[in-house]
Amino acid sequence: MVLRRLARPELRIVADQLRAELIRIGSEVGGHFAGSLGTVELTVALHYLLDTPHDRLVWDVGHQAYGHKALTGRLAGLMKVKKADGPSGFLRREESPYDAFGAGHAGTSVSAALGMVEAARRSDSGARVVAIIGDGAATSGMSFEALNHAGELGCDLRVVFNDNGMSIAPNVGGLSRTKRARGYFEALGLTYIGPIDGHDLDQLLPGVEALLASPGPTVLHVRTQKGHGFAPAVADPYKWHATQPFECSTGRPRSAGEAGTAKASGSGGAPSWTSAFADALIRVAERDPRVVAITAAMPDGTGIDKFAKRFPDRTYDVGIAEQHAVTFAAGLAAEGLRPVCAIYSTFLQRAFDQVVHDVALQKLPVTFALDRGGLVGADGPTHHGVLDFAYLRIIPNLIVSAPRDENDLEGLLAAAVASGRPFALRFPRGAATGVSILSEPKALAIGRGEVLRRGGDVALLGIGRTVGVAQRTAELLAERGVRASVIDARYVKPLDAELICATARGTGHVVTIEDHAGFGGFGSAVLELIAREVPRTAVRIHALPDRFTDHGEVTAQYRAAGIDPESVAADTLTWLRSLHPTPLSRPRAGEEQEGPRVT
Amino acid sequence: MVLRRLARPELRIVADQLRAELIRIGSEVGGHFAGSLGTVELTVALHYLLDTPHDRLVWDVGHQAYGHKALTGRLAGLMKVKKADGPSGFLRREESPYDAFGAGHAGTSVSAALGMVEAARRSDSGARVVAIIGDGAATSGMSFEALNHAGELGCDLRVVFNDNGMSIAPNVGGLSRTKRARGYFEALGLTYIGPIDGHDLDQLLPGVEALLASPGPTVLHVRTQKGHGFAPAVADPYKWHATQPFECSTGRPRSAGEAGTAKASGSGGAPSWTSAFADALIRVAERDPRVVAITAAMPDGTGIDKFAKRFPDRTYDVGIAEQHAVTFAAGLAAEGLRPVCAIYSTFLQRAFDQVVHDVALQKLPVTFALDRGGLVGADGPTHHGVLDFAYLRIIPNLIVSAPRDENDLEGLLAAAVASGRPFALRFPRGAATGVSILSEPKALAIGRGEVLRRGGDVALLGIGRTVGVAQRTAELLAERGVRASVIDARYVKPLDAELICATARGTGHVVTIEDHAGFGGFGSAVLELIAREVPRTAVRIHALPDRFTDHGEVTAQYRAAGIDPESVAADTLTWLRSLHPTPLSRPRAGEEQEGPRVT
Repeated sequence: MVLRRLARPELRIVADQLRAELIRIGSEVGGHFAGSLGTVELTVALHYLLDTPHDRLVWDVGHQAYGHKALTGRLAGLMKVKKADGPSGFLRREESPYDAFGAGHAGTSVSAALGMVEAARRSDSGARVVAIIGDGAATSGMSFEALNHAGELGCDLRVVFNDNGMSIAPNVGGLSRTKRARGYFEALGLTYIGPIDGHDLDQLLPGVEALLASPGPTVLHVRTQKGHGFAPAVADPYKWHATQPFECSTGRPRSAGEAGTAKASGSGGAPSWTSAFADALIRVAERDPRVVAITAAMPDGTGIDKFAKRFPDRTYDVGIAEQHAVTFAAGLAAEGLRPVCAIYSTFLQRAFDQVVHDVALQKLPVTFALDRGGLVGADGPTHHGVLDFAYLRIIPNLIVSAPRDENDLEGLLAAAVASGRPFALRFPRGAATGVSILSEPKALAIGRGEVLRRGGDVALLGIGRTVGVAQRTAELLAERGVRASVIDARYVKPLDAELICATARGTGHVVTIEDHAGFGGFGSAVLELIAREVPRTAVRIHALPDRFTDHGEVTAQYRAAGIDPESVAADTLTWLRSLHPTPLSRPRAGEEQEGPRVT
Repeated sequence: MVLRRLARPELRIVADQLRAELIRIGSEVGGHFAGSLGTVELTVALHYLLDTPHDRLVWDVGHQAYGHKALTGRLAGLMKVKKADGPSGFLRREESPYDAFGAGHAGTSVSAALGMVEAARRSDSGARVVAIIGDGAATSGMSFEALNHAGELGCDLRVVFNDNGMSIAPNVGGLSRTKRARGYFEALGLTYIGPIDGHDLDQLLPGVEALLASPGPTVLHVRTQKGHGFAPAVADPYKWHATQPFECSTGRPRSAGEAGTAKASGSGGAPSWTSAFADALIRVAERDPRVVAITAAMPDGTGIDKFAKRFPDRTYDVGIAEQHAVTFAAGLAAEGLRPVCAIYSTFLQRAFDQVVHDVALQKLPVTFALDRGGLVGADGPTHHGVLDFAYLRIIPNLIVSAPRDENDLEGLLAAAVASGRPFALRFPRGAATGVSILSEPKALAIGRGEVLRRGGDVALLGIGRTVGVAQRTAELLAERGVRASVIDARYVKPLDAELICATARGTGHVVTIEDHAGFGGFGSAVLELIAREVPRTAVRIHALPDRFTDHGEVTAQYRAAGIDPESVAADTLTWLRSLHPTPLSRPRAGEEQEGPRVT
């Protein structure tokens, strides 16, 4: 690495250039922004003093690693960051040998690094391993587990504690008072060095040298400023955590979007699902004083910031601590409250056991509002919410649902809070439908779907976002003479068995469509029902293939997976023909005739 | 509560009587033992000074709460503890108003208690809330998340830190050095009181009073001795964590079982699955130096203690920290090792996200050995391992398997380590089959099942333990003239599509049997495959119903769920008749005829 041939005084120039490049790139393409500006000097110092990639740098999450990407041969690539043909916004082993361990969710770096330290010890590779963890990610339980184990092992784990006082939002917890950091790390058996100024290379270089020279598990406490070197981001690092393209000189947005923000907002006037959820939750909470809201360090992303403005004393931000969020909610619910946990689908995976053990087993009335269900596009495989139907519907006592529009969202939320039961509802990233909002929430009985279109040849079952896909598919099929019923299943669990079985009997052919993995999800639930109740009915599942989906553009990704009206319609025609081969023997011209050819 | 009418000097007598009762009960019926002996005085002091159940006592896990059960009206019930008609071995809200929050998995108490404190503040109930957490459970990440949040909230959370130097095994982590406890809690923003002697009521009563009087989040550090007051348990508290019935005077076992242990051992000469796993892992590790083993504070329960005797430097006990265990393994695997994580099925739920995000997404060669798959009996709903096929098979890149006997266990373990891929294998609690062990592991190709019996009327598909059920079912069906194929699917993922589809085509009727929940599991996987490849084949799933199964006796529980040969055979006959109604119209005498009536 050329960097290592420079003299120390030259590193200031490198850092300044790197920061200027990051600002330029951020201004042109957006992306995670403020975090990486805060780690410029740290990144330079670490790569200067370590022999990467032989030595291992393990970044946490990846929000702060754009500088690392730039220094390790991916500067040009950053102009396409998070695009299908560009690098990931996070860390990926496939992307570069300098990405020693992939990331995306918070708090994994110390565990992974500890494993690598042990592996290096066993192989005598001499590789040094440094984990860089933010004070936000350090609120996650697994980072504590790893530090505690490191204290026990006593091996040469090196940790940089990147303390900027923020997770995405301002940081949470007793630990976030930096004067307490020494006590925390020393209590777990680590040697503590610091705090030092993370923008002063004259402190950083000796600090990192001391870290590398220290025997046994050691932490270097580095104070950094999120957004450092770009005044608008320093002034509002929360808003600038991620950004749309902006004018460098002013920080003003280049497009019509909101300044310095990358919120998933709706296009063409439709609100985002997040915003619709926030509004619905506020209305539900206005009617029911038992409702309180919980976020795990994502007040902005989940819309809980809006709720908090209306009900500051009914809002909890627990930090990056999904496990605690869920069991804390269970404790509230056990005493008569109706907590709503707003957690991204992918992050609720962290609390799977707590949903089972603390909420569902005790039948406590906690509502889980899962934003970012389905594919999320640019954030890629660590952030897609495509396992939730499957991992939630296997849990006894838990209701699992998905709204097709904003009114159903409020109706489900109201039903959830009123039900007195564990209840999950899940909605996508991005723009909702833009329907007119009803003054009262819809009364949506638990386990009841809705027939949106009647047709005797085939039944199309959608859930949440794919109800729209089913409707459009039915129109396309109608053009080919196939009459399709369309059902909004609304509940993955309990399924509307009566409606689905009646439709299965009526049509003989059931097609399910979901923005979810193909194993164990909605389609699988329908299969189980039909195998039991209407055996030998033909069922066809449209869902995502059994592999992780990269970052990219959502619409294109669904099309590639065949979860778009054109693909489903074409597949349905082929499938129906394969089940009824006789009509296929007719001349091809016959395919253009009006009227059903199936049943 | 009568206790509260006593004078303080009388509490010593209460404590001594309570301990004597616990020893008597333990000696007669066994159960979790040493933990509760260590908390006798603490239990008395807390119930004496608190107004339970109005004030809330939140115990962690429940291993140490037998004294609490005895003091709250369940002394007689403890003679049937963990039996179908007796109380749970853990905490359950349904069981008593004094069980403020259910438990079974470690580390939940502080989160739940914090929710209750907030609820009490909102309702002005005046209820005080005390969480009691052991130093073992305090190594779990979620307890840290909760303490950190408590430090931020500043509300009147009271925590008793029950420090006996043990989880089940001797405790792990820097934190376990008690002199560091003050630094830990203070770093998170809690007021620290202690340490005090937890067997001296003259220290305990003022200590608890000080805890209750302290404003804001406060922890009382209580040092206790696991097994206190019973010499054999004090001498070996690890062994006496749970026990079989024993002679009070000597500690010797009443039956032929091992003294002072409740290990899941095999009956009739067959080894336990745990023991078979330990032996197999040792043999695999002897052949492959890359293999290392990881346990999360369960060296005994998982058999890793045996492995550790053979390979002390290739064993890690990370504490009650399943999340870290998995990502630590991923770090080891990223550097060329082949870690085997031995974690109970139910506890791996804690690390679901890490399996997805750190192992499977990066295709790292970590092997998950899940003991206690299926129903576990006495430990009840928090401990059954009946969701694992479902939550694991939805994860891309992960292989999911289950052995039908000890040789398959070793074969799968060898295949897992050799595969270089993420790989899970799952086996039950209790006695294995007792087969002769082969000198070399069986070569078990990934995704290949095995035909164990051929018959053209119906195919019976088993996995793991239910392969035996399928074989016996086939014999019963043969007696009724129905010829069944029996297939050991061996892999839930990837399924042996070729074999299963060929069998489905050949028989037209597929019956799946699994010791797992009915939603999303093995049967569901088979349904998905057949719906796609052999549409309109009749498939019948035998699995557990969609509810939590209580504690009780395993064989009876499987029978109640219909997962025993007699039930499956009877159901299969009924089902085949319902699919082929014509033969049913024959005279009933015809049902006794030889030969198949189906196909």
